[in-house]
Amino acid sequence: MNIIFGVDIGGTDIKLGMFQEDGQLLSRWQISTRVMNNGQLIFDDIAKEIRQKMNEQSVSRSSVLGIGCGIPGPVDNQSFVRKCVNLGITNIYPEQEITKRMGGMSVQIGNDANVAALGEMWKGSAQGKRNILLVTLGTGVGSGIIIDGKIVNGLHGLAGEIGHFTIDPEETEKCTCGGTGHLNQIASVFGVLHYAKRFLQEDSAYSVLREKKDFNCIDLTDAARKGDAIALKTLNYCMGCLAKGLAVTAHVIDPDIFLIGGGMAKAGQLLIDIIEEHYLSNLYLMPERTEIKLAALGNDAGIYGAAKMILDRKGD
Amino acid sequence: MNIIFGVDIGGTDIKLGMFQEDGQLLSRWQISTRVMNNGQLIFDDIAKEIRQKMNEQSVSRSSVLGIGCGIPGPVDNQSFVRKCVNLGITNIYPEQEITKRMGGMSVQIGNDANVAALGEMWKGSAQGKRNILLVTLGTGVGSGIIIDGKIVNGLHGLAGEIGHFTIDPEETEKCTCGGTGHLNQIASVFGVLHYAKRFLQEDSAYSVLREKKDFNCIDLTDAARKGDAIALKTLNYCMGCLAKGLAVTAHVIDPDIFLIGGGMAKAGQLLIDIIEEHYLSNLYLMPERTEIKLAALGNDAGIYGAAKMILDRKGD
Repeated sequence: MNIIFGVDIGGTDIKLGMFQEDGQLLSRWQISTRVMNNGQLIFDDIAKEIRQKMNEQSVSRSSVLGIGCGIPGPVDNQSFVRKCVNLGITNIYPEQEITKRMGGMSVQIGNDANVAALGEMWKGSAQGKRNILLVTLGTGVGSGIIIDGKIVNGLHGLAGEIGHFTIDPEETEKCTCGGTGHLNQIASVFGVLHYAKRFLQEDSAYSVLREKKDFNCIDLTDAARKGDAIALKTLNYCMGCLAKGLAVTAHVIDPDIFLIGGGMAKAGQLLIDIIEEHYLSNLYLMPERTEIKLAALGNDAGIYGAAKMILDRKGD
Repeated sequence: MNIIFGVDIGGTDIKLGMFQEDGQLLSRWQISTRVMNNGQLIFDDIAKEIRQKMNEQSVSRSSVLGIGCGIPGPVDNQSFVRKCVNLGITNIYPEQEITKRMGGMSVQIGNDANVAALGEMWKGSAQGKRNILLVTLGTGVGSGIIIDGKIVNGLHGLAGEIGHFTIDPEETEKCTCGGTGHLNQIASVFGVLHYAKRFLQEDSAYSVLREKKDFNCIDLTDAARKGDAIALKTLNYCMGCLAKGLAVTAHVIDPDIFLIGGGMAKAGQLLIDIIEEHYLSNLYLMPERTEIKLAALGNDAGIYGAAKMILDRKGD
């Protein structure tokens, strides 16, 4: 059976997967990301790792369909990366960089959130669906959009940036982008902890969170599950804002399913229950609620989706 | 050359066009919409009109590629129409209704706003583009979305319903859908006139509009062009809200171009200038402004797009 490599390039590490054409993951490993020289070391490392894996596993050059890569920044419809802050790269075609290091092997590049959505469609929570929005609640809020089975990049590679329009017009604190009241500030892991701390200051209600020197999202959602007032207030506010953002996007693309991934998704079904409750109150036209589910592949969604890009290209 | 029929079914009249395959409009006519019997008379009339035209123009059955139809309501991905209030139809497959009246001729159905967007891509303001949002400022605010050259319907046929999420959270008046502060109430022809009247009451500034017993959108935009304070305040508020809505959708689908059509578009370039000014103040991530243009085909966009659906199906 043919082989595909899926690569998920992050700011801290690079995840690599060797797949069979049918999606079976044969090998999975990761290396550190060496951010310097406009990404040259990243491309060198990826090429080196894949060659080495091919040698180790006796994979012939002719059996490799290609290498798919997810990148943590905007990728436009021409596969051009204008700027990717996390990798320290500007004005580059990563496809060309990798393909020339691999003797002309087929390479396909995509934005990491979009690629993860493709992975979930292929082997995760959205199997059988063709129109998906995956929102990732991690350090920030990103999202990947699939329409008619294909990644939507957008003219500037900014499709799916639902973290960056105003959801709470009363919020005055600034988002990293300069705007205010954005989901990126509110529904990310950072955002949720930030609001929990703010509510602990503003609200005198008893909370187990006050007893902790520091707490993370798991502590917060555990407390919410036990009925902790501040934890519940935080999740209701932050996930209420997310639900509002999902309702807005439903009025734009009306997807088959919403998937929730990223660090916050570790909170599990509680998170979905809260989002669903608020989502309904923001809908007027929809005859029924669109399904909202947890993403299934976790950190592996990126390598799965990256590999799938190669299959999709093959079928072009 | 082969022939295609494009039909735009509205609540008041049905527009029909006979096209050559290359998009040349050979004949254009319209009839009244007879809303009764779950649309049966509409389908009868369309079939009768097309047969008659074929006879008149000696068009052979074999040279007709098909009939495309735009409908003023949601059409889902299975071409099912659950409810179309303007035509008084529920739970029907209009494709089947027309095709059975035309001896099995190929028929394709779409939502009117989406179909108009396709028309503008084919022969209007968005030629050469593959990713489009056309917003129609008429009785209400509708929009049609094309991604990768194809209409986006959405699971419930509600993709492009950007008229129905909250843009002005301070507005307390209700939209027809039950929500508040929606573009449908604010940037439609009805909305703009409503706000002009409200501002005339609230604001004591001089305005030529006060002297008129009644005024329409052309009066209003003419006044704005001459610097009338209330007219300008109205357009700035209403088109400012539209710009905010476009900026939101840019963060979801990041289209190649925005087109503005419908009755309000008769205001011309002034409208675009105002929208562009406000659009910029709502963008944080975009490296450059997405093009915003007036739609070119006016009321004919629907028949053009309807015909194009048949060509696209042929190429499937």
